[in-house]
Amino acid sequence: MSGFTRNQLIHGGDYNPEQWLDSPEILEQDIAFFKKAKINEVSLGIFSWAMLEPEEGKFDFGWMEDIVNRLYENGINVIMATPSGARPKWLADKYPEVLRVAPDRRRNLFGGRHNHCYSSPVYREKVGIINRKLAERFGSYPGVLGWHISNEIGGECHCDYCQDAFRGWLRERYGTIEELNRAWATTFWSHRYQSFEQIESPSPIGECDLHGLKLDWRRFVTDQTVDFVKVEVQALRDGGSALPITTNMMYFYGGLNYHKFAEVIDTASWDNYPLWHKQPEPETAAEVAVYYDIMRGICRKPFLLMESCPSSTNWQSVSKLKKPGMLLAASLQAVAHGSDSVQYFQMRQSRGANEKFHGAVIDHYGGEDTRVFREVTQVGEALEILSELTGSGVKAQAAVIYDWESRWAMEDAQGPRNKGLYYHEAVTKIHKGFRRIGLNVDMPDMEQDLEGYAVVAVPMGYMFRKGFGEKLKKYVEQGGYLILTYWSGIVDDTDLCFLGGTPHELMDVCGVRSAEIDGLYDWETNSGAAVPGNSLGMTGEYRCRNLCDLVQLRGAEEVLRYGSDFYAGQPALTAHSYGKGMAYYVCADFEEDFYNDLCRKVSEAAGVKSLWVNLPEGVELSTRQDEKAEYLFIQNFNPSAVEWDEVPEQWQQIYGEVSEKLPGFGTKVYKRAL
Amino acid sequence: MSGFTRNQLIHGGDYNPEQWLDSPEILEQDIAFFKKAKINEVSLGIFSWAMLEPEEGKFDFGWMEDIVNRLYENGINVIMATPSGARPKWLADKYPEVLRVAPDRRRNLFGGRHNHCYSSPVYREKVGIINRKLAERFGSYPGVLGWHISNEIGGECHCDYCQDAFRGWLRERYGTIEELNRAWATTFWSHRYQSFEQIESPSPIGECDLHGLKLDWRRFVTDQTVDFVKVEVQALRDGGSALPITTNMMYFYGGLNYHKFAEVIDTASWDNYPLWHKQPEPETAAEVAVYYDIMRGICRKPFLLMESCPSSTNWQSVSKLKKPGMLLAASLQAVAHGSDSVQYFQMRQSRGANEKFHGAVIDHYGGEDTRVFREVTQVGEALEILSELTGSGVKAQAAVIYDWESRWAMEDAQGPRNKGLYYHEAVTKIHKGFRRIGLNVDMPDMEQDLEGYAVVAVPMGYMFRKGFGEKLKKYVEQGGYLILTYWSGIVDDTDLCFLGGTPHELMDVCGVRSAEIDGLYDWETNSGAAVPGNSLGMTGEYRCRNLCDLVQLRGAEEVLRYGSDFYAGQPALTAHSYGKGMAYYVCADFEEDFYNDLCRKVSEAAGVKSLWVNLPEGVELSTRQDEKAEYLFIQNFNPSAVEWDEVPEQWQQIYGEVSEKLPGFGTKVYKRAL
Amino acid sequence: MSGFTRNQLIHGGDYNPEQWLDSPEILEQDIAFFKKAKINEVSLGIFSWAMLEPEEGKFDFGWMEDIVNRLYENGINVIMATPSGARPKWLADKYPEVLRVAPDRRRNLFGGRHNHCYSSPVYREKVGIINRKLAERFGSYPGVLGWHISNEIGGECHCDYCQDAFRGWLRERYGTIEELNRAWATTFWSHRYQSFEQIESPSPIGECDLHGLKLDWRRFVTDQTVDFVKVEVQALRDGGSALPITTNMMYFYGGLNYHKFAEVIDTASWDNYPLWHKQPEPETAAEVAVYYDIMRGICRKPFLLMESCPSSTNWQSVSKLKKPGMLLAASLQAVAHGSDSVQYFQMRQSRGANEKFHGAVIDHYGGEDTRVFREVTQVGEALEILSELTGSGVKAQAAVIYDWESRWAMEDAQGPRNKGLYYHEAVTKIHKGFRRIGLNVDMPDMEQDLEGYAVVAVPMGYMFRKGFGEKLKKYVEQGGYLILTYWSGIVDDTDLCFLGGTPHELMDVCGVRSAEIDGLYDWETNSGAAVPGNSLGMTGEYRCRNLCDLVQLRGAEEVLRYGSDFYAGQPALTAHSYGKGMAYYVCADFEEDFYNDLCRKVSEAAGVKSLWVNLPEGVELSTRQDEKAEYLFIQNFNPSAVEWDEVPEQWQQIYGEVSEKLPGFGTKVYKRAL
Repeated sequence: MSGFTRNQLIHGGDYNPEQWLDSPEILEQDIAFFKKAKINEVSLGIFSWAMLEPEEGKFDFGWMEDIVNRLYENGINVIMATPSGARPKWLADKYPEVLRVAPDRRRNLFGGRHNHCYSSPVYREKVGIINRKLAERFGSYPGVLGWHISNEIGGECHCDYCQDAFRGWLRERYGTIEELNRAWATTFWSHRYQSFEQIESPSPIGECDLHGLKLDWRRFVTDQTVDFVKVEVQALRDGGSALPITTNMMYFYGGLNYHKFAEVIDTASWDNYPLWHKQPEPETAAEVAVYYDIMRGICRKPFLLMESCPSSTNWQSVSKLKKPGMLLAASLQAVAHGSDSVQYFQMRQSRGANEKFHGAVIDHYGGEDTRVFREVTQVGEALEILSELTGSGVKAQAAVIYDWESRWAMEDAQGPRNKGLYYHEAVTKIHKGFRRIGLNVDMPDMEQDLEGYAVVAVPMGYMFRKGFGEKLKKYVEQGGYLILTYWSGIVDDTDLCFLGGTPHELMDVCGVRSAEIDGLYDWETNSGAAVPGNSLGMTGEYRCRNLCDLVQLRGAEEVLRYGSDFYAGQPALTAHSYGKGMAYYVCADFEEDFYNDLCRKVSEAAGVKSLWVNLPEGVELSTRQDEKAEYLFIQNFNPSAVEWDEVPEQWQQIYGEVSEKLPGFGTKVYKRAL
Repeated sequence: MSGFTRNQLIHGGDYNPEQWLDSPEILEQDIAFFKKAKINEVSLGIFSWAMLEPEEGKFDFGWMEDIVNRLYENGINVIMATPSGARPKWLADKYPEVLRVAPDRRRNLFGGRHNHCYSSPVYREKVGIINRKLAERFGSYPGVLGWHISNEIGGECHCDYCQDAFRGWLRERYGTIEELNRAWATTFWSHRYQSFEQIESPSPIGECDLHGLKLDWRRFVTDQTVDFVKVEVQALRDGGSALPITTNMMYFYGGLNYHKFAEVIDTASWDNYPLWHKQPEPETAAEVAVYYDIMRGICRKPFLLMESCPSSTNWQSVSKLKKPGMLLAASLQAVAHGSDSVQYFQMRQSRGANEKFHGAVIDHYGGEDTRVFREVTQVGEALEILSELTGSGVKAQAAVIYDWESRWAMEDAQGPRNKGLYYHEAVTKIHKGFRRIGLNVDMPDMEQDLEGYAVVAVPMGYMFRKGFGEKLKKYVEQGGYLILTYWSGIVDDTDLCFLGGTPHELMDVCGVRSAEIDGLYDWETNSGAAVPGNSLGMTGEYRCRNLCDLVQLRGAEEVLRYGSDFYAGQPALTAHSYGKGMAYYVCADFEEDFYNDLCRKVSEAAGVKSLWVNLPEGVELSTRQDEKAEYLFIQNFNPSAVEWDEVPEQWQQIYGEVSEKLPGFGTKVYKRAL
Repeated sequence: MSGFTRNQLIHGGDYNPEQWLDSPEILEQDIAFFKKAKINEVSLGIFSWAMLEPEEGKFDFGWMEDIVNRLYENGINVIMATPSGARPKWLADKYPEVLRVAPDRRRNLFGGRHNHCYSSPVYREKVGIINRKLAERFGSYPGVLGWHISNEIGGECHCDYCQDAFRGWLRERYGTIEELNRAWATTFWSHRYQSFEQIESPSPIGECDLHGLKLDWRRFVTDQTVDFVKVEVQALRDGGSALPITTNMMYFYGGLNYHKFAEVIDTASWDNYPLWHKQPEPETAAEVAVYYDIMRGICRKPFLLMESCPSSTNWQSVSKLKKPGMLLAASLQAVAHGSDSVQYFQMRQSRGANEKFHGAVIDHYGGEDTRVFREVTQVGEALEILSELTGSGVKAQAAVIYDWESRWAMEDAQGPRNKGLYYHEAVTKIHKGFRRIGLNVDMPDMEQDLEGYAVVAVPMGYMFRKGFGEKLKKYVEQGGYLILTYWSGIVDDTDLCFLGGTPHELMDVCGVRSAEIDGLYDWETNSGAAVPGNSLGMTGEYRCRNLCDLVQLRGAEEVLRYGSDFYAGQPALTAHSYGKGMAYYVCADFEEDFYNDLCRKVSEAAGVKSLWVNLPEGVELSTRQDEKAEYLFIQNFNPSAVEWDEVPEQWQQIYGEVSEKLPGFGTKVYKRAL
C-alpha cells in the first residue's frame, strides 16, 4: 500500500482555493463539480505560505481549515503540502540569505519558485516553524491522507553556507585532502588542493573542468536536498503528525538522484507531462512507461501520479489539446504501471500569473459542460471500477539499469561524442525490447539488488559504482543473463579511468576487451550483420550509429560483425558463457529492431515466460498483483482499433469494452485469482 | 499640416558636419551637392553633445551656427536635434547615475547610445540645460523648422530612481496594495505584496513570472520615457522656442507604446529600414505599408519619414544594394501613405566607427558621379513636382486594430503556442486583404475611436483594454461590420482571465463561445471548407496553421468548417448579425488567400466602395486629399512592368511615365478636384 | 635549424609523469615503451607548478630531476616548459589579482587554465621566480633541448592593471588625445575623450561600437602578451639558461597576432588538431597546409609540430578514430611543410579530469599491443629515415597575404555582410590554387617583405596597414604579378575609411575603382563569364556568392563579366599592366574552380616553373632544401591509391613504397643533390 490510499484509488489533484476566497460561490461550485467528476482528493497548500503567514509570525490557518472541513463533509480527502516551494516576500526581504546564489556567485532577487537556499539556517528555521504549525493543526485530521513536501524540488545554491556544507561533506567522504586529490586527479592542470577550505563549488567563471568535483557537487546537492527534506519531515513529526510523506518528483528532471529520497519519504510520487500527439502516441507511451518503471523503483512499491494535465499544458513551445480518449488512456497507464492514483494539476485554473492557461478540470469558463470535464469524469468512473487493485504490486522478470550518478559522470566527461551520447535513448530501446514481448520491467540503479531477475541489461554503464562490477559478475556466475553495451565499466566512483582494460572487472565475464571506440558523425552509419549459425539465432543486419566499440575477442563468440569502415568484419555483438550464466556485449548504438530481436532472443535463452509474445505494435501489456489476484492491463495507444485475441480462460475481464478489438486509445483490464 | 513643412515636401536627412570641421572644403562641397540633388533640409546635432559642450558647462555653438547660416543662405532648412541620445564621456564619468542599469541590476559602463537613465535627476538637469541653450540660440532661426527630440528613443533602466518612480506609478494606478495583489493575481506562488515598497522591477534573476508586473513595467517604461520627453520639450519652451516637436520612432521596435507620445509631440516621424530584395518586393512593400499606416495614426495627421537609407544599410546580416528604381519607389510610397517628407540617414558617410559603411547620399569616394547620387536627385525632382499635396490627409474606410499593450500581454503570457503566435503576420494579412481591393487602411489602437469606419478588424485581440469590448459591441450594434479572430477577449487590462466565457462581452455579438484552443506544431495544418450556400458567399477551402479555436455556436451561422483532426466539421468561420451590423469570427490562423477573400466579401457586404477592386498583384493604390483635391498614387512594386487600365476621366496625371503600362518599380500620381 | 634539434627530427610530445609518481612501475614501463616507439623527446612540466612549488616559496624539483635523468640515460631529450599556463590554488587564494577579469569586469574564480592576468605584478613576479629556478636547475642539462613557454597562450584580462597598461600603450601610440580622437573617429555618437585616463577597454556592457578602440585593444592584448613572454624569457636568462625558446601556438586561434611573437621566440611551434575524416581527407589536408605555411612564416625557418593527436581527440563534438595510415600521412605532412618534429599530446593518458579520453601514445589499457602504438612506431621509423633533412628550409615562388590585424578589423566592422565574410575560405581557395600546380606557398602578413615572389595574392585585404598599398604598388611596378580581390584597400590602420576611392593607392595599378559592393544572401549566386579573347586566356563561366564588387573601369581589361542582376555585363575580373608587372582584380567571391584556373593562368603569365603541374586530385607536392640537397614530398591524401608518374631522373627515392602508384594515405620522399 502506498500509505496514502484508503482502499480506493485516489482521483484528484492540486487545488488553490486561496485564490478564490473572495468568491465563496466559486468554492461551493467547485465541491459540487468535484463530486460529479468522482474526485475524492485534493492537494492543498502547495504555494500558500503568504496566505498562511501573511506577516512574520502571524499565522492565518482559518481559511484552510474551513476548506478542509467542507471537503471532508463532502467525502473529499486532502493531501496537505508544506509551503516551502515558494516563500513570502517579507521573508526574502528581511533575510536575503534565504535566496539562492547562482553558479556565478550572484544572489537571486525574490521571484519565481525553487528560489531558496536549502542550507540557510534561517530558511530551515522558518520552514520548520510553519511545518510544525501545519502538523499541529492538520496532522491528525480525518480527511488528511498525508504530507506533500514542498513542490518539484530541484536546483542548487552556491552561497557561503552551501560552500561550507559541501566542504564538510567532502571531508566526511574523503578524510584527507590527499585522498581527494588522488580521487579527483587534481595533478592535472595543477589543480591540487592543500586543504578542504580551498575547495569551491563548480562555476562557469571558475572551476568547470574537474569532473570529480562536478560529480561530487551533484551528489552533495542531492544529499543536501534530502537533508532539507529531513528537516521538513522532522518538523511535521515534531508537530505530532504521523501521516505518510511524499514529495512530487519531475518527469525528465536530471538534477537529483531520486533514489536517495527513498530514505525520507514513504511513497514516491511524480508529475507526468508527456507531449502527447507530438509523435505517434505509442512512442510517447513507451517513453512514459520508462519513467513509470523508474519511479516505481524508488520506494519499490506503488506510487502516486501526483500531477498530470487534464487538458493541454501551457509551458511547452506548442500546447496541443489532448484528443478524445487520450486522457483516459494516459491515466490508466499510470495505474497499469503501479500507481495508486490519478491526480491533476490543477482542479481550477487560476485567473492570473504564468500558469493561467494550464489545463484544469474546471476552466475559466467555469461550466461542467466541457469536453475536459466529461473526460475527467470518465477517469473517475474507471478508477472506481478498478478500486480493488489499490495497493497491488508489480513483479518484473527483466531489469534495465538506469543510474543517475553514472549518467551525470558520462554526460559531463568529454569523450568520443560530446554532441549526443543518447543514453536515454539506449535505455528506452532496451526497455521497449522487453516490453514488446509483454514483460514488466524494473529499472534499478547500480546500488539496488539484482536478485530474482532472469535478464539484466546495462546500457552504457559508463561508471561502475563501488561494487557494481562485482555484483554483475556474481549475477552472471550464478546463472543470470546479462546484456552489457559499449561505453561500460570505464570509470570508477570518482570518474577515474580504470587501468588495464575495460569493461572493468567484466572482460572475463564478457570474453572481450574494448580496444578503441569510434565516434560517428550524425550523418554516418555502420551496420552489424549476423554471423551464420550464431548460437543466439540472430539473423539479418542492423544499422548502428553514434558510437562503435572495437573489441578484442578474449573467448567470446561473435554474433554480429561490423559491415563497413576499417573495422568491417570485426565483432559488433558477442556472446560468452560464464559460470552458470551468459553475457552479451553490444558493441554499437544499434537501431530499435536490433533491441527488439536481442531482448526476445536473450529472454528466450534465459527461459523467461511472457503472457503474450506477439503484441501488436502500439499495444502495452502490464500486470499488477497482490496475494489474492493478478490484474492484466491491455492498452492500445494507437488512435485506431487493433485486432486482439482474447486472453486465456482463467482471466476475467473487469474493465473496458467487450469486443474482439481493442478500440483506439482503449484499455481492457482482466483479473485472475492467485 | 505636419507643422514642419513650409509649403513643400521636405527632402533631406541626418547630417553630421561636426565630423568634418577640419575639412572646410568638404563642407563647402556638401552644400553644392545638396543643391544639385534638390535637398532642402538637413537634420543637425543628433549626436553632437560632446562637440556642443566639450567640458561641463563650457558650450561651443559657434561651429553649428556657422553651418546653419551657410545652409540657410543656400536655401536649406534645418531640423534641430536635442543631443540626449548620446552623452559626453565627462558626464558619465562625473555622474555615473546617468548610465543605465540592466534588468540584472548591473550598471552599464559608458558606451553606445541609448545608455542613459531617463529618471536620473542629474541627466534630466543636464539635458534641460543644453536643450534650453539650444533653444535660446536656434529656437527662432528662420531656417529652423522644428525640434527632433533625442534619437530613436528606447530601452529601459532598473536603477533605484527608476524603482522608486515605478512604485509611485503603481501607487497612483492601484491606490492600495490589496488592489494590486488582486489585479496581478499575486496569490499564485505566494507572491503577495504587503506594501508598494516591496515591489521590484522584473528581472531574469528575480521576478519574471508575474505577467501583471511585467505588463505594468512596460507601461511604466513608456510613461516614464514620455515624461522624460516632456522635460526635454519644456526646456526648449523655457528657452523661448515655439517650434514644433517630433521624435523619430523605429521600424519594428516593440518596446514602447508609441501612441502615448501623441501628447508630447506635434508630428510623428519615423525611421524606415525595410529589407528590400530579401523577398519579392511586393511583400516588403505590403509590410512597410502596415508601418506607414500605424505611424500616421499616432498623431492622426501627415507624418515625416525621418530616416531611410539611400543605398544599402550596414547593420543587417546581409546588406544588399538597392536595385535601380527602388529608392524612388520606396520614397514615394512614404508620400502616398501620408508622409510630408523623404529624409535619409545620412547625407555624408562618416569615416569611422560603426556606421561608416551605412549608405549615404555622398559616400567615401566623395563624387556626385555615383548611381546613388543620381537616384537621390530623381527623388528630389519628384518631390518638387508633388509639392502641392504637402499637408493633405488620408481617409480610410477600413480599420485594423493594432495594439501594443495587448501584444505585450499576449506575447508574454504562456499559452497555446509559446513558439510563434504570429500576431504581426495576422495583422499584416488582414491589412493586405483590404489594401488588395484598393482601400486606405487606418490602424488605431484599442483606445482610439472607431467612428466612421465601415469595417473594423480585430486580429488576435487578446487583451480587451478597459472599454474595448463595449466599444466593439456598440460599433456593431450601430451598423458596423466587425471581423474578430481567435484568441480575442481573453484577458482584462491586467492580464487577468475573463471568467464566464470568451470572447468576453462579445459572445452574444459574435454568436459563439470559444471552448478550447488547439496549438498546432509547425508541421501541422488543418483547413476550413466553405459551407454550401453560406450567406457570405465564401467558396472553396483554405489552409490554416498554428492555432485552431474550437467554438460552440450560440446563434452564429457556420461559414467554414474544419477539415480534419477530431474537430473536423466544427465551425472555422462564423457570421452573426447583431443590431444593425454584422460580426464575423475567424477561428484559425488562415492563409493569405482566405483574408483576401474575406476582406473583399465583408467589404462588399458593408457597402464599401473602392476605386479599384482588381489591382494587379504587387500594385498599391493609395489616396491623399485636402479640401480642394484628391491625389491618387498607383505604385508597381514588381521589378517588371504590369498592364494598367487608365484611371477614370476626372483624374489627371501629374507624375510618372505616360503609358498604358506601369513600369517596374514605377509610380504614377493622379489628381482630381473636390 | 630550429635550434631545438640535434641532427635528428624530434619525435615525442607532452608527458606528465607527475600524475604517476605513486606508480614507479608505470614510469619505468613508459621509458621502455618510448624506446620501442622511437620516441626521442618528451615535453615536461607544462602544468606542474603545483607539484614544483606545492606551497609558496617551497620548491620540490627532485621528482623532475629524477625523471629528466632517467630519460637522458635512455637517450630521450626533454623540452622543458615554464608552468605559467596554470597556477596553484594557493597563489590565486593569496593573490586574487592574478586571476583574470572578464570584459564585463567580473573577476574569475580559480579554475581552468589560461586564467591569469598577464599584467599583474604579482603574477609576473611569481612566474619569474619559478622560471629562474627552473633555469638554474635544468637550464644547462645535456638532455634539455630548450624552453616551452607557458602553454597555448591566449585570452585577455580587463583588470585595473590592464586598463592602466592599455592607456599607457595608447599614449605611446597616439601622443595626444586629439590624435586618438581623430584616429578613432570619436566624434561619431559623441564618444570624444578629453584624456587618456577616460579610456576603458571594450565591453559588452559598455563601449562596443568604436572599431578603433576594439582594434587597438586587440593589438594591445598581443603586445601585452608578448611583454609577458619577455618577462618569462628574461627569468630563464637570469637563471643562466641560454637554451632556445618557443611557445606552442594554436590551430585556428584568432585572438593573437602570432607574427608579433617572432621577436621573443627562437622557433615557432604549434598544436595541430584538424578534424580528419569529417570531410574528404584531401580537403582537410589542404586546410592544414594553410596553417603550416602560416606557422612557418612566423620565424621564417623550420618550426616544430609541438602537439598533435596520436588517436582521436576528446574535445570535439564528435571524436573519430584516425583510420589506419592517417597518423603517418598527417605527421609527414608537417615535415613536408617545414617541421623538424612530430610531437604528440600526450604520451600517457591521464586517469582523470577533462582530457582523460584524449588520445595518447599509451592509453588506460597500458599495453603496447594497440593499433595506436604500432602506428606511432611507424612514424618514429619514418622520422629516422628522413633525419638528414633536419633543418632544411622551404622556398616559395608564390605568396598569399594573411593578416591578423586586417582580419580583426574586417570582421569587427559592420559592412555588406555581417553574416559570413568567408575570409578564411578566400585565403584557402587561393592557397589551394597555387598548391594544385605544385607550388610551395608562403603566407606573409602585410608587414613582411614581398621580395622574391613571382606572384602575390591579397585576398580581402580590407585594411591596408601603413605602407602596404605602397609596397604592393612598388611590387607590381618592378615586375610582380598581383592578384587583389574585392573588399581590399578600404580602411587605414585605425579602421578609418580611405576617401577618394578604393582600392586605396591601387586604383591606377589595377585600373579600376570599386564603386559599390553588393551583399548576397546565402541562397543567391551570380556568375562571371569569360570575355572572348581575353588576354589571360580564361574561358567558361564561374559561380560567385556572398559579395559582388561593382567596379568602374579606369584602364583595365575586362576578363570576366557578371552574368545576372542589374549589374550583368559589368566586369567581374579585370587585368591591368602597370610598370613591369600585372595586376588582376577579382570582383567577387568565386568558387574553387575559378581560383584553380586563375592561379594557373597568372602563374604561367608570371613565368613560374613548377615541378608538376598536373597533380592528381588529393595529392600534395612539397619541397624542402638546404645548401646540399633538395627533398621532394609526394603525399596522397586520398584513402585509395592513385596512379603516379615517376619523378625525373635526377631524383632518388629515399622513403616510401617503391611502385607506380601512390597508395592511399601514402607518402614518397625523393632527394636530389644541389
